[in-house]
Amino acid sequence: MPGYKLYTHDAPFPMRLGGSLPGFQIAYETWGRLAPSRDNAILLTTGLSPGSHARSHPEAPAPGWWEEFVGPGLALDTDRWFVVCSNVLGGCAGSTGPSSPDPRTGRPFALSFPSLTIEDMVTAQRALLRHLGIEKLHTAIGSSMGGMQSLAFAALFPGEVANVVAISAAGRSYPWSIAIRFVQRQAVLSDPDWMGGDYYGARGPLNGLHVARQLGTISYRGPGEWAPRFGRKRVPVPGLPQDGHVADQEPRFPDRPGIAAAHAHRFGVDFQIESYLAHQGDKFVERYDANSYLYISKAMDLFDLGEGMGSFEEGVARIRARALVVGVPTDLLFPLRLQEELAEALRAGGRDTTFRMLDSIYGHDSFLVEVDTLTAILKEFLEPASPV
Amino acid sequence: MPGYKLYTHDAPFPMRLGGSLPGFQIAYETWGRLAPSRDNAILLTTGLSPGSHARSHPEAPAPGWWEEFVGPGLALDTDRWFVVCSNVLGGCAGSTGPSSPDPRTGRPFALSFPSLTIEDMVTAQRALLRHLGIEKLHTAIGSSMGGMQSLAFAALFPGEVANVVAISAAGRSYPWSIAIRFVQRQAVLSDPDWMGGDYYGARGPLNGLHVARQLGTISYRGPGEWAPRFGRKRVPVPGLPQDGHVADQEPRFPDRPGIAAAHAHRFGVDFQIESYLAHQGDKFVERYDANSYLYISKAMDLFDLGEGMGSFEEGVARIRARALVVGVPTDLLFPLRLQEELAEALRAGGRDTTFRMLDSIYGHDSFLVEVDTLTAILKEFLEPASPV
Repeated sequence: MPGYKLYTHDAPFPMRLGGSLPGFQIAYETWGRLAPSRDNAILLTTGLSPGSHARSHPEAPAPGWWEEFVGPGLALDTDRWFVVCSNVLGGCAGSTGPSSPDPRTGRPFALSFPSLTIEDMVTAQRALLRHLGIEKLHTAIGSSMGGMQSLAFAALFPGEVANVVAISAAGRSYPWSIAIRFVQRQAVLSDPDWMGGDYYGARGPLNGLHVARQLGTISYRGPGEWAPRFGRKRVPVPGLPQDGHVADQEPRFPDRPGIAAAHAHRFGVDFQIESYLAHQGDKFVERYDANSYLYISKAMDLFDLGEGMGSFEEGVARIRARALVVGVPTDLLFPLRLQEELAEALRAGGRDTTFRMLDSIYGHDSFLVEVDTLTAILKEFLEPASPV
Repeated sequence: MPGYKLYTHDAPFPMRLGGSLPGFQIAYETWGRLAPSRDNAILLTTGLSPGSHARSHPEAPAPGWWEEFVGPGLALDTDRWFVVCSNVLGGCAGSTGPSSPDPRTGRPFALSFPSLTIEDMVTAQRALLRHLGIEKLHTAIGSSMGGMQSLAFAALFPGEVANVVAISAAGRSYPWSIAIRFVQRQAVLSDPDWMGGDYYGARGPLNGLHVARQLGTISYRGPGEWAPRFGRKRVPVPGLPQDGHVADQEPRFPDRPGIAAAHAHRFGVDFQIESYLAHQGDKFVERYDANSYLYISKAMDLFDLGEGMGSFEEGVARIRARALVVGVPTDLLFPLRLQEELAEALRAGGRDTTFRMLDSIYGHDSFLVEVDTLTAILKEFLEPASPV
């Protein structure tokens, strides 16, 4: 039992950069109750990796990815609001993506899945909202790529969003983060087990995806957290010159000559930070589809509210919602400058804009960690929020 | 004609972490003249990738890696000082490393090369200096891993160095940079063409090394430089939906099904920043040995002046030289905090220590770019420097 519901879209769905899907499914979960006036809906959009399971519920009791922010009395107060969260189009947690069967062939789309953008994701989500009877959102809210989606929703459908919240997000991607994602994709593309994307039923590019996720983890956190947490602490490896644990690395390189020698030189897991990275990679490759990774990663690079407009500011000015922009000074992947740029553009367009700096050592991932501070910021913005 | 000279060490050379070399060669170049009093020698140590060619000369007229800092009237004034630069032990630009033939077998050492440390590098360089008739250094100077070497030299041989300069370096490695290097090594180790290190005569792990170097480039520069330089500029690709150039990517993935589809989705080179990264990777894999990369990368992780001492401060206090420490606030790989920590430890040990912050958008690579500012800092320190 997956714990999510499925919305099935039965009509062809044209994609922004060309091509179309013959239809799609979106996996979603909801919390709270839609008011008879239908004016209390919040769309919670996700970053790259989470699915629709933001918060535990009776059909899916495991903790959700934003467990401490969604629920009675919490930042997204389910006594008051009806919260909807979905797995993005292109994902691999129930929604249609490259690993889904193409109904026209019965085989996975793989790279026949059309190019994907943030705008396609929110257009699919809007169809889901219509299906749920929601014409207007009280609030569109998201962090990281979720913030790109909340902004895109508010820009594409300006009459349908009263409030927009973008946390550790951006109105457009800049080269340093594009560079990180390019290298992550290169790690996948250059893994021979990627097989041009046609790896379904085979092993798949686990090594490449593992490397990509490790690099992701580096970009999500930062030196300020890791120096005190890990320092130069080592991992013990029995039988090696300085003793250490390589169990989570060995299965990745079976039957390769010289690996034992590499272990002796400790090129693999040796410091605790390395064990942490390898563990993050292990958890990710178990559940995530490499082609979804490629498509969604690229969608982030492509995101630019100014694209096709006269300027970035003009693109941002499409947004009519009251706005909250939150940024973290230690964020390496979505640097504070991007949230400042966004807030400036919103204000230049005349929007009622609140900018809050969240001071934290946790970098890009602060929105998962800084529960008290971020809850206070969200409540301050949402409690008196303008009605739909 | 390689343009460098070779020093041959004919005696067994024990390595710090165990094992030994039957002997070794060190490639080196010199500029200026050793004074009859032999008190004007400067040892210039290198980062991971450069060889001994710091400055052009008649036998090797191509520009060196620190061309604008070494020469008559420049920061390392060759009218005054005798400058020596060598390729590190373990490298692949003339010095003995994993790609060199093991004289006992006639085949490349590969992973039978013993584990390598920064301390081994400087011990080998000291043998070279003895060969050149130099008993004491006026100055040991280096940037990045070169600064680790200048510090290690001054700590291991405190009576033999009058002045030490460490630019964008550290007295020990911290987890964020260890994490970056771990992921770089994983990219190499998980490339099947690495073949457990026994790839000589075959293709070698070009894809993995390419990914590793791209990630290196990301860590050497930063958002502050790339946002204005590259922005969201695209690269034209003829024949693709939005037209673009993928020539420098295609050869990496020959005969793989689906690559054309990946190109259509622009998962490869699309933005100019991506073309820049791919070009940096291309240049690197042409000249650099993957096993050298593994050994030297690991040596950086292992570097800790406090190792085996009562404390970091105690390890640093072995240094008796007058010291200059330079750091750059935008350096992601060797953050400013590391240079502050080093300067504090030197001062706590009673050393005459100058700390200079070099303000630049160029991140870790500032020492290659900020010629005027860094020259002024170096001249200020070196001109009145204490005699040997």
